[in-house]
Amino acid sequence: MYPDVVDAMRPYLEGQYGNPSSIHRGGRMARKAVETARKQVARLINAAPREVVFTSGGTESNNMALCGAVLAASGTRPACRIITSSIEHDAILEPCMDLERRGAASVEYLPVDRHGTVDTRRLAKLLGVDGNNNCDGGCDGSANNGNGHNGTGAGGYDGSAGATLRDPRLKQPAAPDPASGPLTLVSVMYANNEVGTIQPVREIARMCRVAGALFHTDAVQAAGKIPVDVKSLGVDMMSVSSHKIHGPKGVGALYVRAGTSLAPRALGGGQEDGMRSGTENVAGIVGFGAAARIAHDSIDVQMSRTRKLRDMLICRILEEIPQSALNGDPAKRLPGNSHFTFLGVNGEDLLVKLDEYGVAASTGSACSVHTQKASHVLQAMGFTHEQITGSLRLTPDTLNTGDEVDRAVDILKRAVAELRAVSPFKSKYGFDA
Amino acid sequence: MYPDVVDAMRPYLEGQYGNPSSIHRGGRMARKAVETARKQVARLINAAPREVVFTSGGTESNNMALCGAVLAASGTRPACRIITSSIEHDAILEPCMDLERRGAASVEYLPVDRHGTVDTRRLAKLLGVDGNNNCDGGCDGSANNGNGHNGTGAGGYDGSAGATLRDPRLKQPAAPDPASGPLTLVSVMYANNEVGTIQPVREIARMCRVAGALFHTDAVQAAGKIPVDVKSLGVDMMSVSSHKIHGPKGVGALYVRAGTSLAPRALGGGQEDGMRSGTENVAGIVGFGAAARIAHDSIDVQMSRTRKLRDMLICRILEEIPQSALNGDPAKRLPGNSHFTFLGVNGEDLLVKLDEYGVAASTGSACSVHTQKASHVLQAMGFTHEQITGSLRLTPDTLNTGDEVDRAVDILKRAVAELRAVSPFKSKYGFDA
Repeated sequence: MYPDVVDAMRPYLEGQYGNPSSIHRGGRMARKAVETARKQVARLINAAPREVVFTSGGTESNNMALCGAVLAASGTRPACRIITSSIEHDAILEPCMDLERRGAASVEYLPVDRHGTVDTRRLAKLLGVDGNNNCDGGCDGSANNGNGHNGTGAGGYDGSAGATLRDPRLKQPAAPDPASGPLTLVSVMYANNEVGTIQPVREIARMCRVAGALFHTDAVQAAGKIPVDVKSLGVDMMSVSSHKIHGPKGVGALYVRAGTSLAPRALGGGQEDGMRSGTENVAGIVGFGAAARIAHDSIDVQMSRTRKLRDMLICRILEEIPQSALNGDPAKRLPGNSHFTFLGVNGEDLLVKLDEYGVAASTGSACSVHTQKASHVLQAMGFTHEQITGSLRLTPDTLNTGDEVDRAVDILKRAVAELRAVSPFKSKYGFDA
Repeated sequence: MYPDVVDAMRPYLEGQYGNPSSIHRGGRMARKAVETARKQVARLINAAPREVVFTSGGTESNNMALCGAVLAASGTRPACRIITSSIEHDAILEPCMDLERRGAASVEYLPVDRHGTVDTRRLAKLLGVDGNNNCDGGCDGSANNGNGHNGTGAGGYDGSAGATLRDPRLKQPAAPDPASGPLTLVSVMYANNEVGTIQPVREIARMCRVAGALFHTDAVQAAGKIPVDVKSLGVDMMSVSSHKIHGPKGVGALYVRAGTSLAPRALGGGQEDGMRSGTENVAGIVGFGAAARIAHDSIDVQMSRTRKLRDMLICRILEEIPQSALNGDPAKRLPGNSHFTFLGVNGEDLLVKLDEYGVAASTGSACSVHTQKASHVLQAMGFTHEQITGSLRLTPDTLNTGDEVDRAVDILKRAVAELRAVSPFKSKYGFDA
């Protein structure tokens, strides 16, 4: 966490112990702190404060969006159809499978290309809207051009052409009728947590609007890292998380556009405008607010700084480690994400070795450690088992230094070489040559 | 929060920022801290650590227990029947009403007597078990005699006779078959949050066991305040909260007896043994663990200390403020709870006046402030509107001093007198005499 975040939280850990629902002075001060944080989080994503529902984190936000939308529709609307992507976080995929298992919804999964970009033509077809927008593949315009922040760094990997959509129906979308007809809920992540690919969220949001579908995006990896603007994008729901932006763990939020039909996540005392009962995690929420404020105020500086570190990392690794490949979209990727395949190396072994040398890396999603399964993201991108096994994610952050990145690469070079020297694939890839 | 709790949390706020699901060193240290806390919370309630599922608080725990049990039964079991009490917290009542509205369960509400004790004869009748146990009304034995801690303070309000149950069927209960037949779920709180009455939880647990019903108890007010032993009581699920025992807000737990059929609360990365996905709130959980450890180690001292302060408060108020009455059970009540009616006074006005003078009180549940409704607890206890309006809860705590209690009573006396001097009921109650 940022020291400023901890400082902001401290009073609510040490002295200010009021319950925001209490009428007395201590309660009123806690209420004020929570509402200030709500404004800070709202500002980060350009939402109205009352559209921000605090949750216990990104997973709860995702579960709330999916289950809440389906639950709200059940009884009054004839059927639920969910369209999501094959590279979502498990906090989307698992609830989807559960809803399908229970007969509450049917689920369709959008494929992705080699870079991990969701197939919007397929989505257009599924939604029955025109998807020919003359910007094959390179059409993002969502994350990178939302506020004109990205794509400005010379030599950066984020710059995209930012072509505008040509379909007039997509340009002037009709407002969907949220109260009748079968519910179609589209949930596509803003940016992938493993390979960092930024998805064409703006395009998807427009298609959903034309089709009258509800659109949720899991922006846990994106909000606070790249400019995210719910109003400009036109999303209906968006999940964000505190601990991804140097805030405390155990706090997140769900943006719910005013007028969106959603069943509450927890029932009881009626907190969070009745959407999520339970005594508020005041210190956590205050910390999240402080982190959101810092992210909002310094996003340009932080993006440029992180991107520079990431590009250093990528350039050195691709140049200095033979048979290494960068995964994910080379341009449309999160400023702080790099993801590689080192053929002939077992990523888990590499991770353990790096850890011994003081470098914290991941083979994929930290959350998948409980299931020990191969990355479904890399599988969906068409990677072979060997490529998946040899993969590693390194995520430099604004708090890292150039020296640290250099040391990490030096250590990585050594670790990859050591592992390749004893690799069973030594001959196959010519490491013994 | 206790300073020791904040100290325990500090490393996980400041430096140790690992994700417990990460394989690297930082992750492993966070995992270890979470599992230590799990043991501490388990020890407080005499559960096995793997039976403790961390949640974001008592409300989530309650929602998880009710909805999770009904969801787990749906599909495989013919029907769901919930029996609860009319004085539960809204975090029980609201999910119950919602489940009924959706056709997922039928709900029956147990009445309470004038002291707020749940009618166990009615429960016996509803469950079809023998409820004649020769200990009419005074039979608690649950909270007060679980560990032999309570009922020992001379002049205390907690001591109960602790009669044993006479029905041999209740003495040697048959294990219910959890996998077949219609599900009956009984949820009765351990101790009431407004009037502090401790419920006959042990007796209810035995009845449920005989009837093959699942038993959940909301112990948010009890765990850490009086000895609570899930094994000895024989409950299937129990909700506990961190911020009620000087731990941080935003953390709680659900005890789930091994073998209990319960659907997960959130799906995703598979944390909490698959029962509650989402990156763990490490600092919060560590703080909860520390608070549970302190509560466990000092419960006797704290109970006796708090009870003394409470009894001082009760004695002085009943003696010195005319036409005041203590509500809730005079004996079987939480050590730190006192709840009064001051006829002719509006509790809200009293609360505001007390707040001005620096005394933090409540008219009922802090959580009910969003709904602004009259206390359903006092209504169920048969109170008139005027009695409900004139009610106030004061909860001395182990961190309070005798001087503070004395000052609070002095201020209360003055405030009640001031309000009665301008009360529209002045003549009715003879305050102008």
